[in-house]
This record gives sequence, C-alpha cells and structure tokens, in this order.
Amino acid sequence: MEHNRPVIGFLTDFGLDGAAATCRGVMLSICPDAQIVDVGHTIRKYAIRDGAFLLRFALPYFPVGVHVGVVDPGVGTARRPIGILTGRGDILIGPDNGLLISPAEALGGIAEARELANRDLWLPLTTSTFHGRDIFAPVAAHLAAGGAEFEAIGPVVRPDELIRLPDPEAQAEKGVIETVVTYVDSFGNVRLAGGREEIEAAFGGLADATPLEVEFGGPEPLREATHYGTTFGTVPLGASLAYIDSLGNLALADNQGNLASRLGIEPDRPVRIEKR
Amino acid sequence: MEHNRPVIGFLTDFGLDGAAATCRGVMLSICPDAQIVDVGHTIRKYAIRDGAFLLRFALPYFPVGVHVGVVDPGVGTARRPIGILTGRGDILIGPDNGLLISPAEALGGIAEARELANRDLWLPLTTSTFHGRDIFAPVAAHLAAGGAEFEAIGPVVRPDELIRLPDPEAQAEKGVIETVVTYVDSFGNVRLAGGREEIEAAFGGLADATPLEVEFGGPEPLREATHYGTTFGTVPLGASLAYIDSLGNLALADNQGNLASRLGIEPDRPVRIEKR
Amino acid sequence: MEHNRPVIGFLTDFGLDGAAATCRGVMLSICPDAQIVDVGHTIRKYAIRDGAFLLRFALPYFPVGVHVGVVDPGVGTARRPIGILTGRGDILIGPDNGLLISPAEALGGIAEARELANRDLWLPLTTSTFHGRDIFAPVAAHLAAGGAEFEAIGPVVRPDELIRLPDPEAQAEKGVIETVVTYVDSFGNVRLAGGREEIEAAFGGLADATPLEVEFGGPEPLREATHYGTTFGTVPLGASLAYIDSLGNLALADNQGNLASRLGIEPDRPVRIEKR
Repeated sequence: MEHNRPVIGFLTDFGLDGAAATCRGVMLSICPDAQIVDVGHTIRKYAIRDGAFLLRFALPYFPVGVHVGVVDPGVGTARRPIGILTGRGDILIGPDNGLLISPAEALGGIAEARELANRDLWLPLTTSTFHGRDIFAPVAAHLAAGGAEFEAIGPVVRPDELIRLPDPEAQAEKGVIETVVTYVDSFGNVRLAGGREEIEAAFGGLADATPLEVEFGGPEPLREATHYGTTFGTVPLGASLAYIDSLGNLALADNQGNLASRLGIEPDRPVRIEKR
Repeated sequence: MEHNRPVIGFLTDFGLDGAAATCRGVMLSICPDAQIVDVGHTIRKYAIRDGAFLLRFALPYFPVGVHVGVVDPGVGTARRPIGILTGRGDILIGPDNGLLISPAEALGGIAEARELANRDLWLPLTTSTFHGRDIFAPVAAHLAAGGAEFEAIGPVVRPDELIRLPDPEAQAEKGVIETVVTYVDSFGNVRLAGGREEIEAAFGGLADATPLEVEFGGPEPLREATHYGTTFGTVPLGASLAYIDSLGNLALADNQGNLASRLGIEPDRPVRIEKR
Repeated sequence: MEHNRPVIGFLTDFGLDGAAATCRGVMLSICPDAQIVDVGHTIRKYAIRDGAFLLRFALPYFPVGVHVGVVDPGVGTARRPIGILTGRGDILIGPDNGLLISPAEALGGIAEARELANRDLWLPLTTSTFHGRDIFAPVAAHLAAGGAEFEAIGPVVRPDELIRLPDPEAQAEKGVIETVVTYVDSFGNVRLAGGREEIEAAFGGLADATPLEVEFGGPEPLREATHYGTTFGTVPLGASLAYIDSLGNLALADNQGNLASRLGIEPDRPVRIEKR
C-alpha cells in the first residue's frame, strides 16, 4: 500500500447529537485524508475513568495514530490541554485530567508530554465551552496531516506533573481477592481490577466451574453465588460467572443476561471474591 | 475511479462503547485502506434474528464487499466461525448460528461456505469471549486487503450443514393473512413476514384507505382498527396504517407516532389481518 | 494533497438500526470515494427543527461538500425533494420542509434551489416510505462523484417558494430578555435564541457571576435562580449558569449536571431572563 491515510481515534462524552460531528468536520477540513475512527461518544457524561478505560481497551488494537480524547468537565478552567507522545509512537490529545494516562501506558508509556500552547494550531476563534472543536480537534488534525511536528504543539510538561486518577487496584491474599468495579460495559458485564495474577495468588488457579462467592460492598452489601468459567457457556443461560475478560482482567457477567442491571452494580463498587 | 477502497460492512450487538471500535482498529491495522461501514451496533443483545434482518435490509444496497456480522451468544463454545461467499461476490464473516443465512440469500445465495480454521488469519492471541476482535475482524480484513483468498480461510462446509433460524412465514387464505412480527424498527414501525403476494392472495389487492382489522395474538390478544395506505400520509397524524414497506414486506405503523410502543408489540408476535 | 475525497455530511432521524447504513451503502455504490461524515441520526423522530439546529451547528465546520438531511415526516406526500446550492459552495439535499433553510443561511445563504426531478439520478425503483435511500442518497452521491452538475437535478425553485419554519427569536428590552428554547443537547444544556447582542441591549453587558433570574413559561411556569458565567467552572458543581455557547448564542446549563432533565425543559418553551 503506497500511502496510508492517517488514523485519528476519537473518544468523547459528547453523545451523538452533533458535537462530535463538528469536531470531525474540523479535522477533515485540516486533514482531508484522515481516517477518523470513533472509539465511543456515549459514555456517562464527565466520566473520565470510563473514557480512560475505553481508550485503553481499544487503542492498543488501532494502527499507530493521533488519537483525541475529550471527557472534560473542567473545560474553560485552568486545566491544561495536553499532548502525549507514547512509546509506540501514537500522540494522544486531550485535557490534562487523567483521561490519557492509562491509555498512554497501554501504548508503550509516556515518551514525552507537552502542553498545547501553540495557538497557530488552534481554530482562530476559541470558546470556553468547546475545546474539542476549538483546540483538540485542530491540533490533532495538524499533527495527523504532517503539517506540524509534536514539538510544535507547546512546551514540555514533566510526566510527574500530569494529573493522574487514583489507580483502581486488586489485593490478593490466601483465599480472597479484594477488588473494585472499573467499568460496566453495554452488556452489563462488570469489569474488575486485577486478573490472572490475583487468581493465582489467592487460589493457586481456578478450574472451570469452581463455585465462588462474590460480595459487592458499600452501604448495602450484596452477595452473589457464582462460578468461575472460561467461557460464558460454562454456566446455564441467565446464570452468572466470574471470568478473565478479553483484556486479561477479572470480570463478572450473566450468560446472555445483564448482571449489572440485575444487581444494580456501578463503577467503583468494592468487590470481594472467595471460594464457596 | 482508479482504485476503490474495499468495503467492509459491519454489524454487531456490541453497543457503542468500545468493542466495535476495537474491531475497527484491528481491521484498519490489517487493511489500512478499508472503508468500514457500520450497519448497526445497537440491536437488542443476543438478538440473532434482528441482526439477520438488518443485514438483509442494508447489505443489498452496499457495494460488493467483505461484511462482518457478530451477534454471538455462543462465543467461546463449539459453534463454528464461518465465512460465506455469496452469489453476488460478497463474503460474509461471522458465527454459524443463523445470522448470515438470510443476508446471504438476499445477496444472490450461498455460493460456498467455509469454516474459519486458518489461524494465520486470526490475531496471534485469541480469547474465548471476544471473537469479533480476535477472529472475525482480522479474517475479514485479510480478505478485504487481498492478502488471502476465500479458499484460504478454512475447509468447506456444506450449506445444508449450516445452522438456520426458523423462517418467519406468512399464510394467506381468502380474506385473511396470518403472519408474524419480524422486526420493530427505531420508529416503532412493525415489520411483518409476507408482502404483496399475500395481499393479492387474501384480498385480491387493497385500495388505498381500505379499512382493516389487525389482531396481535399471544396470551393477551390486542385488536387494532386500521387502514391500508400507500404512504404514511394516507391516514391522519397519529393514526395507524398497514403498508408495504421499502423492502416490499407488510408493515404496520403510526403516522408520525410509535405503534410498537403504543401497543407494546415485540418481534415474534403473531398477527392476523382481515378487512373490516 | 492531490485529490481530496468528496465529503458528504449526513443527518437523519433514522436512529441507529440500519436505515442510515442502507443510505451509506447507496452513496458508496455510486461514489466509492465518498467520505461520509455522520452529523447525527438519533434526534427526536420527526423533529425538523432539531435537525436544522444540528446541521447549522455542525456544517459550517465541515469542508465544502454535498450534505444530506432527512427528517421527513411527509415522506411520500406532495412535499418536494430539493437541493440547495449555498453561497459557500455546498449542496444540501433533502425534503422541502424547512430542514435545510437555516443550515443554508449559515453556509453563505441560498445561491440557488432546485427540485429533485431528474429520475436518472434516483434509484431505479423508488418507494413511498424511504426517500432517503431511493432519492436523497443517490442524488447526493451522483453530485459528490462529479457525475452530475447541480443544474441536472431538476428545475429551479424560487427561494421564496421554499417551506420555512418560524424562526425562534429573542426580544431584548431594558432589563429583560424574552427568548425561547431552541434545542436541548445531550448534556441537558438548554440552547436559546439570541446572544451577545440581546445581553448588551438588555443589561449593557454582564459581568461573570452576575445573579440572574430565569423564568420558564408555559402552563406551569418555573423559576430558576442562576448566575451568568463565562465558563461552566464559574459556578459550583451542580449549580446552574447562563452563558454564551460555542455558537455565540444564549444557553443555560448545570455545571456537570443536566439542567433540562432536572427542570423538565423541552424545546419551544418560552424563557424570560432578568437580573436578580
């Protein structure tokens, strides 16, 4: 293939009614050859963590590109607009609020970060409520089009100066995993921190169909009797299972059902897993 | 036009939160020139019949291409991953659970079917919960990019060995059509099996504004007095009509309303239509 | 860049289940090189005004192109299918029901309007319920592909013969702005008619954090004590503000909340703004 079109991955919490489209228009006006690939625009509004989860989930399977993430409750305030060059060669563009850190780590780590300060790469007029259109989209498109180098976007920011979200973590000790809900996907499958390593540490591995007890913490704790399974089909229709998801992380699901809505589970809920 | 970009039609029940995007990334990594055209990702989860309906609805209007359908409640179990070469020259990729049969029939029929068995065309690592990303997307992209021939995907499967869904059918006799709801679209329009042929057989044709009685069967039958119409405008605002839809099939709608939600109609509900 | 792909902006009220995809297939069959850019497909059904708002919101940021808008409650009736050439050079294709007027005005005005009458540019078979697929998509694609000139689509229609929606307007007098809700976006932000000019006329400008009283009219009037702000961050989390939105218009929002759902606000509701 002689000339590949530059890929721009694109995630926002803008919904489906025109704001993301406007950004697409800006990007194509600057980089007509761009292959804009939507990662998602319907996450919960202002849910920086959900945005970070999805960018980390999807981008490692994308071609190297310039990717834009906009979940930006602080738009118009002092929070910095930034660009991050990743170890793999991608450039991530968005607000400095933690959204881009975990995705960058999944793309080879942060090679360099810079503050978006070069207004020549922005739209001529900027507003205080729509930096996706006015700043992030045009900077990304100039980079994708090759009309600007990464160094041109603005001054270097030390990685340890970037805003980071608390990292949800799993703790394993003999016989028990303490973890937390990191994301609820559109199937109602509940993604958790931790993975095979914690299963090994807590249980020395788990055979298919091992009975487990899951306790969801919080003000009104909930218990769910379940089984470990390697595929959804390990358990009967509608029954729940714990499994290792397609990213290698712990997860809970109902086979052809919706566990999260059945039990009312949301992100950040603490979870404890033991054998029954 | 010198060189057309290969078209990949793409339908899943993955929703809009990153899983379909991940597959897009995989496809573009293998076939950077692909024109990926989303058919839909928000159908009811696990609704194989809805997926088949939409693929059959849309794909005949697509350029010949490699099209991926993933509504796959049996992912990770023994169900086969397959490819179908159609009479028109398309290749359909997805699970062997009935999803692809009706669309293939609308694209000139099944010329040849093969099981996806050539792991060289899959991602190097596969999981048991995300064959869209690990198997279907990369096989489709290799075919679209011209890096593999259809014969290379795996061994031939006889068409009569493929899983088929029961075909919803309409029965017409003098004065009555017995049919069934095949799909409820986003307008709440209710699509039915059968079409002009059944109208001819039952009523010898229908003039615009002919009064009809529709009975929805099931445990709590419902009656709806309606009219036959050639356009929505045949009936007043909010009133219902029976019509021939854009595929040539029988359908019921409220003019600028939502018949399915007004009456609580879902797919598979039996329907009986008579003159009033 | 040697050859830019023709851009086709695309807005409908078809939802996400296959109808818009079918149109995309038609367009790519005729113009394989098209860059189809979705403006939105999930607006309220039949809401011509919402469609017009979003096209006007997004298209000025798009490259010059052929853009298709289909919010078409009168499909199949006597309403005309039209094309509008804009001052900027875009062509807008859709029904003559007011949908395309305001967007055309934002793209340099109506240079010429024509009725779609040349059936050579339509699909060979047309239905009375799906002109998006049968008429609008193929005409747009023929124009985008350069296979037809604007003059070829059909006879000229005088701009004053085109259907227009009543224009929502703001009235400012000393100390008060009377306006109306023009759109509710996916954040629940409430967009209003009028902008800086009305603020100047009513209040001689507004400093950040000026206390305002907003009254939503209608059968059950509602009062909201709020503040003027230049960014969402002007007010505490969850508090409301009045601001100038990214289009330069008046708007109301809750900082990181959803004002429209909190107060039950819908388009067309009258709004009165005074200082407290």
